[in-house]
Amino acid sequence: MSQKTGILYIVGIGPGHEDHMTPAALKAISEADIVIGYITYIKLIRHLISEDKKIVAAGMTEEIERARSAVEESQKGKKVAVISSGDAGVYGMAGLIFEVLREMEWKKGDSPEIKILPGITAINSCASLVGAPLVHDACTISLSDQLTPWPAIEKKIEAAASADFVIGLYNPKSGRRTEQIVIAQKIIGKYRKSNTPVALIKSAYRKRENIIISDLENFLDNAIEMLTTVIIGNSNTFIYEGYMVTPRGYTNKYTWDGEAIKGQKRGVPLKLNEQGKPVGV
Amino acid sequence: MSQKTGILYIVGIGPGHEDHMTPAALKAISEADIVIGYITYIKLIRHLISEDKKIVAAGMTEEIERARSAVEESQKGKKVAVISSGDAGVYGMAGLIFEVLREMEWKKGDSPEIKILPGITAINSCASLVGAPLVHDACTISLSDQLTPWPAIEKKIEAAASADFVIGLYNPKSGRRTEQIVIAQKIIGKYRKSNTPVALIKSAYRKRENIIISDLENFLDNAIEMLTTVIIGNSNTFIYEGYMVTPRGYTNKYTWDGEAIKGQKRGVPLKLNEQGKPVGV
Repeated sequence: MSQKTGILYIVGIGPGHEDHMTPAALKAISEADIVIGYITYIKLIRHLISEDKKIVAAGMTEEIERARSAVEESQKGKKVAVISSGDAGVYGMAGLIFEVLREMEWKKGDSPEIKILPGITAINSCASLVGAPLVHDACTISLSDQLTPWPAIEKKIEAAASADFVIGLYNPKSGRRTEQIVIAQKIIGKYRKSNTPVALIKSAYRKRENIIISDLENFLDNAIEMLTTVIIGNSNTFIYEGYMVTPRGYTNKYTWDGEAIKGQKRGVPLKLNEQGKPVGV
Repeated sequence: MSQKTGILYIVGIGPGHEDHMTPAALKAISEADIVIGYITYIKLIRHLISEDKKIVAAGMTEEIERARSAVEESQKGKKVAVISSGDAGVYGMAGLIFEVLREMEWKKGDSPEIKILPGITAINSCASLVGAPLVHDACTISLSDQLTPWPAIEKKIEAAASADFVIGLYNPKSGRRTEQIVIAQKIIGKYRKSNTPVALIKSAYRKRENIIISDLENFLDNAIEMLTTVIIGNSNTFIYEGYMVTPRGYTNKYTWDGEAIKGQKRGVPLKLNEQGKPVGV
């Protein structure tokens, strides 16, 4: 191994528009000797990468090769930026890179030095385009069964639906894989009303951005693709003037003048009646 | 109502350090006539707010007043930026603002115009400091029972634990509220091993940043505060060289040379044996 310590930047570029990419991410890309990423993501930031850099644009399902080459090049002393859209730690390259490092018996202090730069993840950039659907407890579930057993995915959908999480579905559908989103709808429908708000967001903050607000009964009537993010509201989510909103719960306790409702008190747990509902509402 | 259309920016400032705040968020703050936020968050970005702006720094539990004054001032034609740390749509001010707009019977096209700017949310900034804990399905649960009935919170913990979500706990503890995190540990312990990795992250990317890597059995031995984020791994999460990593599942299907394992195939669902485990592993 070279004596020179390389740096491996693991970079989340956010939704893909510069306005929503952090200064730290931009700086890492500008400092790197080599920029590695899935070809679609490389294209999104191509104009930010100067001519002197080496670019490795890899296809889908080539993640292992991409992670290995990133580790190997940076180990030799290069500065390498591996980019993922959104946050590299959310269904992104960060996990695989650590798995490769472990496989290679890399130790802390060895080359490369690891620097992880967070980015705005898809669920958050998508939510910002439709209102405020994530203001209460939420989860993300990928419907892709390429690497995860389908029964484990189904179990997650059932649990999330039954406990009233706002649900973000990633990779809802692909050319060959069309049934999973139908099953998801059925499972969630056991626990939530048919008029539960559902948002479909494609290519957030990109050229082909497309946003649809629908509901649990009807959302499958719309085009859904691999890169569509589906956000399904909880039992309190509502639509107002085209915005999808999940309340945090302030009206359980306060009037619009900011005073505590009779029977409730600022700074203490929400008081419940015998039916388990907030007192005074 | 004034004829002049105001703008209400709902701004996520990320963890609080400029390196991780988006250009769009910075621009909104610089364009605003009035910046409104919880006093702690205002302090984080005080140096970014020019002298000519009005600053409204409100205390905790004054969210309704803050949201109302933001809507009212922007309705009159001002540019108002309401800031939340992380993403304003995640347990932040975005939901409440829409509730206030509805209460006031605001319509799309009325003043103010609403612009939501996403930020890096706590779970992502915290994750980036400990490795890659969120690379598979994850959820966030706030343990605060100030606005949410405690039984509903407990139900979420149980569901998330049983279905093997990576779990991010927000507001795990406060001065008066100390039992909830103990209950959460017990519930999760029914489903996960005692050595399941747990990360405690406080003040990510701020001056008093503090990171602890522990496990499900022992994490309560450490100081946990209101602003600590607790990340609990799933059944596959591991620690390597001090980093917490949740695998995406590549090794279920591929060798380290990137070839499909015998019995598996690139581009199709993961094949399972009769025990429901991936074939060939």
